[in-house]
Amino acid sequence: MARPQTDIEAGRKLLIETVDQLVRQRGAVDISMTELAAAAGMSPANIYRFFESKEELLQAIAENWFAENIAIMEEVVASDLAPRDKLFAFFARRFAVFMARFAAEPEMFKSICQLGAEHFEVIRGYVDLGDHYLAMIVAEAMHAGYLRGFTIDQSVSLINQMVFCYCNPDMLIMLEGKLTEEKLSHIIDTIFAGLAAQPNDAQLANVHQIHS
Amino acid sequence: MARPQTDIEAGRKLLIETVDQLVRQRGAVDISMTELAAAAGMSPANIYRFFESKEELLQAIAENWFAENIAIMEEVVASDLAPRDKLFAFFARRFAVFMARFAAEPEMFKSICQLGAEHFEVIRGYVDLGDHYLAMIVAEAMHAGYLRGFTIDQSVSLINQMVFCYCNPDMLIMLEGKLTEEKLSHIIDTIFAGLAAQPNDAQLANVHQIHS
Repeated sequence: MARPQTDIEAGRKLLIETVDQLVRQRGAVDISMTELAAAAGMSPANIYRFFESKEELLQAIAENWFAENIAIMEEVVASDLAPRDKLFAFFARRFAVFMARFAAEPEMFKSICQLGAEHFEVIRGYVDLGDHYLAMIVAEAMHAGYLRGFTIDQSVSLINQMVFCYCNPDMLIMLEGKLTEEKLSHIIDTIFAGLAAQPNDAQLANVHQIHS
Repeated sequence: MARPQTDIEAGRKLLIETVDQLVRQRGAVDISMTELAAAAGMSPANIYRFFESKEELLQAIAENWFAENIAIMEEVVASDLAPRDKLFAFFARRFAVFMARFAAEPEMFKSICQLGAEHFEVIRGYVDLGDHYLAMIVAEAMHAGYLRGFTIDQSVSLINQMVFCYCNPDMLIMLEGKLTEEKLSHIIDTIFAGLAAQPNDAQLANVHQIHS
């Protein structure tokens, strides 16, 4: 008889929590499925009832780590904020979550980032999802007359580059004290006031005032 | 009798080239002064005639690595380009140098970056020097009416954050294919058209057009 689904869920939860504890204790060292089973008090064979492969386990850990971020992105995209405020909230709220996690457990945060870098194939989908939501905000902004002359992809790439320090956890660690919500707000304002492949007359006048 | 200065210079040059070869062969592993002496065919005592400490050796290697960058920054700052074009050249020319070095020897480039990260105290002075030259360009731009309402330090920090991907060698490695001179040019235009703590009427109208 197949085990009930709730039992599977409980086993998965236990294993994810055990990985969390092991990373907290040892840092981002590679953990084998056998070691993990032992640490969770399971037989090596038993663990595969909950996760068919290490890949599947890593996916579940990433899902856990990104759940709050995804909820924020969905909420912001669905909100009726103006495009400028929506773009700001899109980055600022996730930046605040990262900073809070880093402040609470700096070593754990670094270990998780290192694990992410080592298993980037597991994270790629979340990066792409972020770009997908960003593209939705960009489309709204373009509809409202901003970002003139760029395609959605070009805008997404340029915006990602300009706010890169506020999205990439490694940058948060490296630049910690230099990153503030106020500066991020100025950067978003700059994007809305200035980013355009076909600038309007006022923008052109500003860029070229020195020549006139 | 003290050795003539040219002899000291030749010994230093040989040792710097030997470090270069060792890094090329082994990657960014720690190299002791004793190993370096052996690799250069010197006695362990002799090496200290050329570099009093490993710190001094690392300083000389950094000087070598940053020489071209410093020449570019000095040239751009002294040029009579308009502020927008000056800021673009300031970042674009160094970005081009980095990309060419990375393309020529990717593994060597990564090893040098890793060494730099491990000995950041040696590099800090060069980062500060970059900020110093950037501050000079920012002051000119402010004099010409751009970047209204920010202090020089605030502007330097915001600009550094917005072009971060194009200055940090680790980012060049991570984002390689996504970074182009054309995008950098759009980012510089965006900064000149849009960055201001006290926006002018045209900028304000652009940011708030959605509300009107």
